[in-house]
Amino acid sequence: MCRRVGEKGPLWIADMGTTAAYLNEDQFFSGYTYLILKRHVTELYHLTASERLQMIEELSRVAQALDAAFRPVKMNYELLGNQVPHIHWHVVPRLADDPNPRWPVWTLPHEPHRLSAEATRERVTAVRAALVQIPG
Amino acid sequence: MCRRVGEKGPLWIADMGTTAAYLNEDQFFSGYTYLILKRHVTELYHLTASERLQMIEELSRVAQALDAAFRPVKMNYELLGNQVPHIHWHVVPRLADDPNPRWPVWTLPHEPHRLSAEATRERVTAVRAALVQIPG
Repeated sequence: MCRRVGEKGPLWIADMGTTAAYLNEDQFFSGYTYLILKRHVTELYHLTASERLQMIEELSRVAQALDAAFRPVKMNYELLGNQVPHIHWHVVPRLADDPNPRWPVWTLPHEPHRLSAEATRERVTAVRAALVQIPG
Repeated sequence: MCRRVGEKGPLWIADMGTTAAYLNEDQFFSGYTYLILKRHVTELYHLTASERLQMIEELSRVAQALDAAFRPVKMNYELLGNQVPHIHWHVVPRLADDPNPRWPVWTLPHEPHRLSAEATRERVTAVRAALVQIPG
């Protein structure tokens, strides 16, 4: 995770400031995005108040961009770190055709859905286009 | 949810400012706490920046209190709202004896574990005692 935030591969969406946004390689839930803190910190309460403020604003902006790009019924925001204890948010727009709309994404086991390079590029571009419309 | 935040039943821990903290009635995961926004809002990006700042500080304080009271390996923070679209955080300390430590709590179906009235009171009191030690 710490290494990843320095990389700008095909899933990279944007540098948000204290965080960087990446499309999840598994797009079974369309628009599923990671927001990864650049600094290595594991818990909210290990951040400074100023970092928390910046991070929540960046999370809100990314979620708003996903809302504009995917028009979900509900947004899900999760900070877990049980396997990778480096602050990263799972930001998941839950769309109208969601196969399991009342429950967290974790309760629906599935094969990862990987997009083609072109479809990945299109999706990243769509989120970026939405993001630039949102005041920073 | 909107009604609940006006109530101070046995699960009520504290009024945090923009939010109120309640112990989850199901204590299968010890310390599982809800942090419920008092105002009816469904998404992060529908809050004002000032509300987001206050809310993230309150979330951080509650999590830090749970850390002090339960000494978890990792804290989980989830804002979902798929069933109840009113901002409420699931704040779950994941302890060393967690039965499913690498995965979100949702992947382990279980019968709710309800504490006795006395055990509930003790647990709420322990979280409150930790909370007053944390600068606001």
